[in-house]
Amino acid sequence: MAHLTDPERTQALVNRVRRIGGQLQAVERALEGGADCAVTLQRVAAVRGAVAGLMDEIMLDHLRAHVAAPGLSDAERQRGADELAAVLSRYAK
Amino acid sequence: MAHLTDPERTQALVNRVRRIGGQLQAVERALEGGADCAVTLQRVAAVRGAVAGLMDEIMLDHLRAHVAAPGLSDAERQRGADELAAVLSRYAK
Amino acid sequence: MAHLTDPERTQALVNRVRRIGGQLQAVERALEGGADCAVTLQRVAAVRGAVAGLMDEIMLDHLRAHVAAPGLSDAERQRGADELAAVLSRYAK
Amino acid sequence: MAHLTDPERTQALVNRVRRIGGQLQAVERALEGGADCAVTLQRVAAVRGAVAGLMDEIMLDHLRAHVAAPGLSDAERQRGADELAAVLSRYAK
Repeated sequence: MAHLTDPERTQALVNRVRRIGGQLQAVERALEGGADCAVTLQRVAAVRGAVAGLMDEIMLDHLRAHVAAPGLSDAERQRGADELAAVLSRYAK
Repeated sequence: MAHLTDPERTQALVNRVRRIGGQLQAVERALEGGADCAVTLQRVAAVRGAVAGLMDEIMLDHLRAHVAAPGLSDAERQRGADELAAVLSRYAK
Repeated sequence: MAHLTDPERTQALVNRVRRIGGQLQAVERALEGGADCAVTLQRVAAVRGAVAGLMDEIMLDHLRAHVAAPGLSDAERQRGADELAAVLSRYAK
Repeated sequence: MAHLTDPERTQALVNRVRRIGGQLQAVERALEGGADCAVTLQRVAAVRGAVAGLMDEIMLDHLRAHVAAPGLSDAERQRGADELAAVLSRYAK
């Protein structure tokens, strides 16, 4: 993301996405292997929770970097707020 | 809310809260009247959707008034962002 | 709800709805009293959590009474499952 | 899943999981490529919606196959309901 100038922060988020990818593959194995329904359900619920957490982190990064950070112009703040609003509205459904 | 200096905006939110109160009383009547389960379920789902919409509006009001608005100090923006972050984290679970 | 033949169970759910009504009135007071934005946000988030909990309880009551309970006909179970499915789909968005 | 004796149904769910995997990789590319924040936010929101939809499908499959289906014993229905309840409670938070 444009504000992610800190390689460590970017890598932390990338690692998080890859972990979710691994959890998703565990769902695929459960489906293909005919695993017990409850196992598959729990694995999908875990993916859902992990994605919500990732979403949360990226929204807060965006809030701090593109709306609240010192030195931004009013127009930049407005744009950052609009971008967050678009996702929040979708998220709140 | 502290930034709500527009009486019309405040009244619109208060009216929205009162409508949700009315929906909630409809749930109460359904429970007490032994209404069909599906009816009660649908009414509670409607309350949940209405509260999510109210939450969305108040978060966006807060974002625009306490984080993105021109003329705020860096400290005020930081505080506004922290307040939104606290609710977002709870909201994302 | 039709299966709620236990007055105590019904009263417990009614009390729960009334508590949410009280929380909602606290949101209304915060709005009208120009309370701090963060306070209003937290109160709405609390209502949202309480409604989700109520929804959860009523869905599980429905699942046990109208789908899983011994002695139901296949048609009754099918109907109970359809009613739950309608709410779940709306809930999962 | 144990009740998935229909290979087509299983494949449809596996395909759905793989599509989500593709969406997740798009998030990873956005992060690594320093894409615009709004793009990354929208992509994560899309993953979240897709996972919620998958969760919905698998819960309904479970409801119909392990709780409502004709011919199940009372104990099997009870177990199916308990498994769904465990996921619903987690889901409702």
